[in-house]
Amino acid sequence: MTDVVVGFDPRTGRPRARVPVTGIAETERLLDAAAGAADAWASTPRSDRAALLRRVADGLERDAARIVSTADAETALGTPRLEGELGRTTGQLRMFASDIESGHHLQVLLTPADPEAGVPDLRRMRIPRGPVVVFAASNFPLAFSVAGGDTASALAAGCPVVVKAHENHPRTSELVAAVLTSVLPDGVFGVCHGRQAGLRAVAHPAATAVGFTGSLAGGLALAEECRRRPVPIPFFGELASLNPVVVMPDVAAADGERVAREFVASMTLGNGQFCTKPGLLFVPDDGLMPRLVATAVRRAVTGPLLTPGIRESYVGHEGHRRLTLLATGTGDPEIPMAVAPELRLVRSEDFDLSLAHLSAERFGPAAVVATYTSQQDLLDKLARLPGSLTAAVHSIATGSEVRSVAAVLQRRAGRLILNGWPTGVAVRLAQHHGGPFPATTDAAATSVGSAAIDRWLVPMAFQGWPEELLPPELQHANPMRVPRRVEPTVPS
Amino acid sequence: MTDVVVGFDPRTGRPRARVPVTGIAETERLLDAAAGAADAWASTPRSDRAALLRRVADGLERDAARIVSTADAETALGTPRLEGELGRTTGQLRMFASDIESGHHLQVLLTPADPEAGVPDLRRMRIPRGPVVVFAASNFPLAFSVAGGDTASALAAGCPVVVKAHENHPRTSELVAAVLTSVLPDGVFGVCHGRQAGLRAVAHPAATAVGFTGSLAGGLALAEECRRRPVPIPFFGELASLNPVVVMPDVAAADGERVAREFVASMTLGNGQFCTKPGLLFVPDDGLMPRLVATAVRRAVTGPLLTPGIRESYVGHEGHRRLTLLATGTGDPEIPMAVAPELRLVRSEDFDLSLAHLSAERFGPAAVVATYTSQQDLLDKLARLPGSLTAAVHSIATGSEVRSVAAVLQRRAGRLILNGWPTGVAVRLAQHHGGPFPATTDAAATSVGSAAIDRWLVPMAFQGWPEELLPPELQHANPMRVPRRVEPTVPS
Repeated sequence: MTDVVVGFDPRTGRPRARVPVTGIAETERLLDAAAGAADAWASTPRSDRAALLRRVADGLERDAARIVSTADAETALGTPRLEGELGRTTGQLRMFASDIESGHHLQVLLTPADPEAGVPDLRRMRIPRGPVVVFAASNFPLAFSVAGGDTASALAAGCPVVVKAHENHPRTSELVAAVLTSVLPDGVFGVCHGRQAGLRAVAHPAATAVGFTGSLAGGLALAEECRRRPVPIPFFGELASLNPVVVMPDVAAADGERVAREFVASMTLGNGQFCTKPGLLFVPDDGLMPRLVATAVRRAVTGPLLTPGIRESYVGHEGHRRLTLLATGTGDPEIPMAVAPELRLVRSEDFDLSLAHLSAERFGPAAVVATYTSQQDLLDKLARLPGSLTAAVHSIATGSEVRSVAAVLQRRAGRLILNGWPTGVAVRLAQHHGGPFPATTDAAATSVGSAAIDRWLVPMAFQGWPEELLPPELQHANPMRVPRRVEPTVPS
Repeated sequence: MTDVVVGFDPRTGRPRARVPVTGIAETERLLDAAAGAADAWASTPRSDRAALLRRVADGLERDAARIVSTADAETALGTPRLEGELGRTTGQLRMFASDIESGHHLQVLLTPADPEAGVPDLRRMRIPRGPVVVFAASNFPLAFSVAGGDTASALAAGCPVVVKAHENHPRTSELVAAVLTSVLPDGVFGVCHGRQAGLRAVAHPAATAVGFTGSLAGGLALAEECRRRPVPIPFFGELASLNPVVVMPDVAAADGERVAREFVASMTLGNGQFCTKPGLLFVPDDGLMPRLVATAVRRAVTGPLLTPGIRESYVGHEGHRRLTLLATGTGDPEIPMAVAPELRLVRSEDFDLSLAHLSAERFGPAAVVATYTSQQDLLDKLARLPGSLTAAVHSIATGSEVRSVAAVLQRRAGRLILNGWPTGVAVRLAQHHGGPFPATTDAAATSVGSAAIDRWLVPMAFQGWPEELLPPELQHANPMRVPRRVEPTVPS
């Protein structure tokens, strides 16, 4: 009689894992426990929080074989990719551990008292928001899921986390959750299954912020739930992204075959199920590049998609159906549910009419080639694109033409790539995995890299407090130094 | 036939200034001009932007006498206060000029390429969002108005600004706008009058963010407009704040008369029309403090309120009407529209039932005294308060009792004050003028202090770009050094 979450085997389409959904009462208990644990977790010394994050990473590595094989059964992403993704997941946990030890994330600002100017002693740092609800993604069962970047950054910030697991990898989620639960103090981490549980978690008074990676429709619905609460909370959603790639005429003429091949490799990586999949390729309209890309697509072989829903959207995509079919490749003949890669064409003169159709993200190994007739035509088209996580330019010359393309693209995307491909996001200090709507719901936020922790922190200023009542990071005589900016006593 | 904005003389209640409302076409022209100026303003060297901000400050000072007298006629805030506010306004402009010269606001992060680890060269900085719409406040006709903190920080960030002037000081707004317009390049600044113009500005496709200081109802309505756009934009609203003050038993017993007197001075400053007015005072229930505060209120004389609407809300406040009247003071007999200060009382046992009534912000010289019976009773009550900009504690001892009060209050307010008062916000590096909803719509944002610029910037990562195509701040060999954090090549 208990409701269950039914996972599917993506290779065969047959039902596989069955995990009970989390009831409303149990979901509320998880949030209550997170609220109860929040103050203690926030005031746990940063070095202790860091040590616990590293123990979570160690625990995931100890159970790596079982986690990877379970994830492969649930996602069909393959062992090498999932082993790599587990490495990224543990790497993220360790990166945030080091980051909070450094104290940069606290952004300590100090204004010394200046009684003559009527200025009190002001000391500002960032503190954790409180319990965070994380919605796991389908396409990264480890790195954007139960112990993924949102969870790691929120725990590092000092926020308890309740994860709403993704329906399509419930067993993987349980294995990973068991590692977190075994390491972290009671209440600091919880996991729930099922759509209703996720909605209840967002509505719970203790929730202070939501992290989400998923579809545009799902994200906007959750954003609305966050807004409708008696006390609205921020929603950090990473939604839909076209990730345009521009091929300049010089590179098309000199090296078009390589660019076409690499584009198709990036577009079909992980069967096209990356947030950063390049979904739109701008090429000169001389006929060369469309032919080269079509040839590369015809040679490509792709596998199954993650869920029945993703497969349905891919096969019957409303937008792409209205565009000219340029080429199709092959679905892996050994996998019943494999889909074939697909390329559509939009000629320069049809761009305006086709914009809505080509702009609708198509998750899976499909892309659109759009031709441009001149530099000005290219700039006009780029300026009309919706926001993306990334935009890439391929060019040999580095003159004013590339400069003007970059100037337009930096208003349309959060990461600008020269002569490279958007897939494969380095989890590093200077990464930015965000962008204008609809790529995300908050263009100032990133869900990858050290700055991902920013989402879970809010500033707090202490005015006139004596040393002994301040957090150690704000004490002048504190031996535990953190980076701090001190205002000169005589302002400029 | 032209619609007009009608300003009122707050002292007499009679209509005064009449300024034509800005039509839809003219408002759209302002936003189009802002969009056209955005790239050039964003790429104007920081030192040049800083110089222009300083010229705006100089221009305001040159016209100070006329601006202050006009503002006094429109707001009745008095010459000394308005001279001080003009100083704060020019001080803000110069502070942001210095801030952008330092380059801290760019938050430059660099990850060097690490080919063996598959890591590309990543360089991250913050760039301006684009045109910003600012809604001026009624209660600071200069410092939170046409050339106020939102405008100064957005211009400094590199964003063009369109200000929707406040209806109650249209002439002051025009004088200040004339200074901005005379100094800044075409399109970088514009001002509009009237509610419909403000709504049209927010709906315009070129708008990328909104700054607002005003009422809860007005702010939530505008936030909804921001959300309903085809491309939603962030809304940074500073709305309603109770600013609780806690008097601990030791200070009540030792120095209650002084605390009562200072509380009433802070509560009646500017006729109680500060966002940081202390609206709720927690005192021990031994009867002493309510009596002392009542005595201070009875001695207080206050003046007129800013607008007929504010006056109406003050006089007929729905929430306070249901609370026990403890004391009233005197409305200045020489000013026809002066209102009297007022103090209401909520006894400990009535707190829960009265929470909704005492929580509704009452703009003007009114406050509520709430009694508590024990430390635990106090903590329980504080935990139930809505979010505020500030919270203050008055105490002689600095032991565990103050510590536990501070622990609760730091979840309820953005600035925590010990033995001081919330009015008088220092515009400095470490200031935080923000807080949990409903104090603001974004607890991570501040509208006062150096960090106010953060609202108008978004990160951008450049991957694989050569030096000559990067902004100077991201070039390794750049002589124009800005603060930057470089990731070690071997990650920890």
